[in-house]
Amino acid sequence: MNMWTVAKTMLTVGLFVLAAVWPVRAADTDKLLTDSGVYGTFAAFKMDHDWWDLTGEARVIAVSEVKGLIDQFSHKMVIESYLLRGLSDDADFMLRVHASALSDTQQFLSSLQGTRLGRHLVATTYLHGLTRKAAYVPGFSDQMKKDLQAPSEVGSKSYAIVIPIRKGAEWWTLDQDTRSALMQEHTQAALPYLKTVKRKLYHSSGLDDFDFITYFETEKLEDFHSLIRALEQVKEYRHNRRFGHPTLLGTVRPLDDILEMFAR
Amino acid sequence: MNMWTVAKTMLTVGLFVLAAVWPVRAADTDKLLTDSGVYGTFAAFKMDHDWWDLTGEARVIAVSEVKGLIDQFSHKMVIESYLLRGLSDDADFMLRVHASALSDTQQFLSSLQGTRLGRHLVATTYLHGLTRKAAYVPGFSDQMKKDLQAPSEVGSKSYAIVIPIRKGAEWWTLDQDTRSALMQEHTQAALPYLKTVKRKLYHSSGLDDFDFITYFETEKLEDFHSLIRALEQVKEYRHNRRFGHPTLLGTVRPLDDILEMFAR
Amino acid sequence: MNMWTVAKTMLTVGLFVLAAVWPVRAADTDKLLTDSGVYGTFAAFKMDHDWWDLTGEARVIAVSEVKGLIDQFSHKMVIESYLLRGLSDDADFMLRVHASALSDTQQFLSSLQGTRLGRHLVATTYLHGLTRKAAYVPGFSDQMKKDLQAPSEVGSKSYAIVIPIRKGAEWWTLDQDTRSALMQEHTQAALPYLKTVKRKLYHSSGLDDFDFITYFETEKLEDFHSLIRALEQVKEYRHNRRFGHPTLLGTVRPLDDILEMFAR
Amino acid sequence: MNMWTVAKTMLTVGLFVLAAVWPVRAADTDKLLTDSGVYGTFAAFKMDHDWWDLTGEARVIAVSEVKGLIDQFSHKMVIESYLLRGLSDDADFMLRVHASALSDTQQFLSSLQGTRLGRHLVATTYLHGLTRKAAYVPGFSDQMKKDLQAPSEVGSKSYAIVIPIRKGAEWWTLDQDTRSALMQEHTQAALPYLKTVKRKLYHSSGLDDFDFITYFETEKLEDFHSLIRALEQVKEYRHNRRFGHPTLLGTVRPLDDILEMFAR
Amino acid sequence: MNMWTVAKTMLTVGLFVLAAVWPVRAADTDKLLTDSGVYGTFAAFKMDHDWWDLTGEARVIAVSEVKGLIDQFSHKMVIESYLLRGLSDDADFMLRVHASALSDTQQFLSSLQGTRLGRHLVATTYLHGLTRKAAYVPGFSDQMKKDLQAPSEVGSKSYAIVIPIRKGAEWWTLDQDTRSALMQEHTQAALPYLKTVKRKLYHSSGLDDFDFITYFETEKLEDFHSLIRALEQVKEYRHNRRFGHPTLLGTVRPLDDILEMFAR
Repeated sequence: MNMWTVAKTMLTVGLFVLAAVWPVRAADTDKLLTDSGVYGTFAAFKMDHDWWDLTGEARVIAVSEVKGLIDQFSHKMVIESYLLRGLSDDADFMLRVHASALSDTQQFLSSLQGTRLGRHLVATTYLHGLTRKAAYVPGFSDQMKKDLQAPSEVGSKSYAIVIPIRKGAEWWTLDQDTRSALMQEHTQAALPYLKTVKRKLYHSSGLDDFDFITYFETEKLEDFHSLIRALEQVKEYRHNRRFGHPTLLGTVRPLDDILEMFAR
Repeated sequence: MNMWTVAKTMLTVGLFVLAAVWPVRAADTDKLLTDSGVYGTFAAFKMDHDWWDLTGEARVIAVSEVKGLIDQFSHKMVIESYLLRGLSDDADFMLRVHASALSDTQQFLSSLQGTRLGRHLVATTYLHGLTRKAAYVPGFSDQMKKDLQAPSEVGSKSYAIVIPIRKGAEWWTLDQDTRSALMQEHTQAALPYLKTVKRKLYHSSGLDDFDFITYFETEKLEDFHSLIRALEQVKEYRHNRRFGHPTLLGTVRPLDDILEMFAR
Repeated sequence: MNMWTVAKTMLTVGLFVLAAVWPVRAADTDKLLTDSGVYGTFAAFKMDHDWWDLTGEARVIAVSEVKGLIDQFSHKMVIESYLLRGLSDDADFMLRVHASALSDTQQFLSSLQGTRLGRHLVATTYLHGLTRKAAYVPGFSDQMKKDLQAPSEVGSKSYAIVIPIRKGAEWWTLDQDTRSALMQEHTQAALPYLKTVKRKLYHSSGLDDFDFITYFETEKLEDFHSLIRALEQVKEYRHNRRFGHPTLLGTVRPLDDILEMFAR
Repeated sequence: MNMWTVAKTMLTVGLFVLAAVWPVRAADTDKLLTDSGVYGTFAAFKMDHDWWDLTGEARVIAVSEVKGLIDQFSHKMVIESYLLRGLSDDADFMLRVHASALSDTQQFLSSLQGTRLGRHLVATTYLHGLTRKAAYVPGFSDQMKKDLQAPSEVGSKSYAIVIPIRKGAEWWTLDQDTRSALMQEHTQAALPYLKTVKRKLYHSSGLDDFDFITYFETEKLEDFHSLIRALEQVKEYRHNRRFGHPTLLGTVRPLDDILEMFAR
Repeated sequence: MNMWTVAKTMLTVGLFVLAAVWPVRAADTDKLLTDSGVYGTFAAFKMDHDWWDLTGEARVIAVSEVKGLIDQFSHKMVIESYLLRGLSDDADFMLRVHASALSDTQQFLSSLQGTRLGRHLVATTYLHGLTRKAAYVPGFSDQMKKDLQAPSEVGSKSYAIVIPIRKGAEWWTLDQDTRSALMQEHTQAALPYLKTVKRKLYHSSGLDDFDFITYFETEKLEDFHSLIRALEQVKEYRHNRRFGHPTLLGTVRPLDDILEMFAR
């Protein structure tokens, strides 16, 4: 009963406040997003049908609880959200969580699944990866190194795509020089899209059934498509035993917007 | 309550009106259907069982809501509908949406899934592709180019088939001339069916787990079958790592007809 | 209410009558079962659990509705039924529908799924194929052609097996003579089983994810098994990329018998 | 109501009686278990969650109904039962049915699924095979033939494992002598385990998606594991395209014991 | 009613007591965890949605029942628990059970599934393996043997990862010397991670669809990831036909903690 009163109060006065204060990103947000040795988790969820049997009021309270939870965890991790609904057949939204320890991510995501809203979430895909220093760049030409430093011009409202990759066993038995040469060709093919398509690589061998998670962000989806076509045409692509499956396509969207869709 | 009254009025006077005015296709419908750089989305849905627990009246209101939604979005996208039920084991109907931005398509489809009817829809397949200028035609013989310009005679009531394709890695490492020669052989095999089977190609690398979506429309299903058999016999077919899975087979059908099946 | 009264009357007086008059096979039944250019659809269904929550009376009415529907469609298509329950883990019964147009089949099957009983049916497998004139027989020896004309002695109560097949890409690039020689070896291996195992071939490339649907009917299941073993030992078998998956095994059974199982 | 009274009486006086009289194995039980030309069906089931919403009394009645059914069929088939729960993630129990006709097995299993308990059973795996005279033994050495005749010492309480196998196409195109030599090597590797691991082979080509079902019974599970390891190391193993998927592991258990688990 | 009173008492006085006394590990715990010839079972479970429809009180009672059950079985097996929720999309928690007979494990796990809580558990993955004496170590160099004896420094709060492996058929046909050399290279690559990543190997051929289950425990997840990367680069890795699928990632956690999550 007490909880109910609290919740009701949250409902009356808290919704907009919470929406405004979230996310209180910690000072080291930038570090988490750029450092190596950081864990990135991609967690896609689907809302089950029973959710809609709740009253509108109950849904609003449940949504507030999630917002509070995220507020509470945002001091030690960066939580970003994506709307997949309408672009993916398998999930409604996705969270990307950056944290320095996967146990923190687990604490957050298991707490999320334990909320009243979370009990209605079906976790459809969990992918984990680690950021690492670029393995092949040191061997690249100076020109290419310079080209790679050009910042990408990605706005605030863009598409995000996640493609996990499993390499064939042959890839790993190639020597470092051969792999470096193949990756240089790969990088050369990607250069023209550097400006409009932002990329981030996660290493996941052992953490899930993939070796890498590739993450892309772009406002020019056509450029992203051309980039993938370009990458398919280099020799390194033949070493991908699994590319996608799943391919997750969505749009960057504040979690508040996404949650409002389920509160209405 | 207010909404209920509105809905009831819609129910009484609006059904046939809506049916008549929809789709209000925008002036640029033709452009969306013929231009390159347009996004095509194939979205197949299955109605869940709980839908039938609603009262007949509730179902009629829910159907009206969808019709209104489509009306509202039809000024900036082309929405076509197909009945899959009775021909496909996995879906009841499919929408093909052409839009100049996938974010528009997402807005429409996520709104659709958020309607009272949409909450009962299970999204079984989402495929996305981009229309592009023909890559190999410029290198074809003049005769073939001329042949390709003959319009196909497809009536208003026909079958539609969607076959997504993933190419093997070897395909992409062939040089442009080799691929062009293979595609010329492929096109030669398809020529006899040009009149009775309409084709449209979408490029999907990176947007889903396929490289292409091939769409076919025909009143002569036997011709379509013969076309596929002919295409299986050219060398290019060996480069398809995945062909179908799923193959979606249905009939072109006004959405009103489809929705009425679920209102009854 | 009116419908209820009608249904109740059907219940009281109609059940046995319907059972007796169905199927009113049209004059051209034989044509549909023997002609080329006819579409064969294999549709397997599972009854969902909720069905058993209906009252016995409601189930009887629902079954009557299906019988009426089949009666109504039987003038333009041939509908045969098979009990899969107890032999297949994935479906309770299967329908084989022969029609000159797949749109007719769709009209029937979507109507079936729209009945009160149909709402409880889960469509687990839909396969479509086209009957065609034998492609390789003209090149066979005269003796083999003669042998092939011997009618098979299949009684009224037998097993039915459906095995869909996808050929590897290599198969289609073999020339007609090579394929003809391979099919002659295949046919030679099948000859000893001609009398006791009835076969029918459907061509399905493009209509589903297979190239062929092979249908078998026999009272001597051991002979059928030996036939498949014999076919596995010829060279043509190496060209099957997918053989079965699913393999559907059932027994020929009047639909009335099957429906009674679900009315009880 | 009448049925209810009957059921109630069964409940009161019948349970132990039934347990005692079942299975009334027919005189030809031994024949069914040792003859060639007998059909073996492996049917694995999972209990759905709704079952536990029934009252305890309703569950007891439902269990009695199943016992009566098995009693009724046991004169013409041998029905053995296995507890998979706790060892398999996909099923709670398995039945192995030996009958001279699969149509009898179908009649029994479809009747089972039609009982009140059966409506809560999800059939997760059905495998069918035929016993045949040993194909390669005649060509084996006299010593090996003699060794094979040693009876296995399997007690009444043991593990049972079912591993279905699909051979690659190459296997079937090997000539009889080559296959015989490979099978002799296979058999040689299995000899040391003959005493403690009982094996039985079923031929299933055409009856399901496999070529063979191998059934093992042992009290010494470690020996069984060593046997499989030994069989993996002979050349014939390379010809297995699919080995397991599923592997069913359970323990021999009277059906009464299993049913009591679901009556409680 | 009686049971209710008992349960209520358990609820009032028992919860902390049980938590305190469990697990009463038997004297031979160490033996079970270090001996060869011991069976290890990995059982991952997901809580179904209906669980949350129970009252809080009912959930607390159900949790107590499970604790009692584990208490009862802990004298003859070692039961360890892991939280997967928040790291795995397919399961909430995992048990690792070591017992000298799989039938004991079955008795425990089937009893667990039969509890009030267990009825809400969906068993998503069951893997079984046998510990055996190291097969290749005897042939290793003395230095390597010595290196392998260094104990790993794994704390009480760490990550656990389970990766099942199926070898390709070629692996098993290699002679012992070749396999030994390959395993020596494999072991050499793993040596640098010996201190921070604890490994345990289970042999599972025939017991499930894999040949091995590899279990890892570490507080330094980055080291574990590097270890897997190192193992991917040795030749032996090419002989893995399936590596993972599933990969289970979680954290070591007392079962009490996990159950409390579901009692709240």
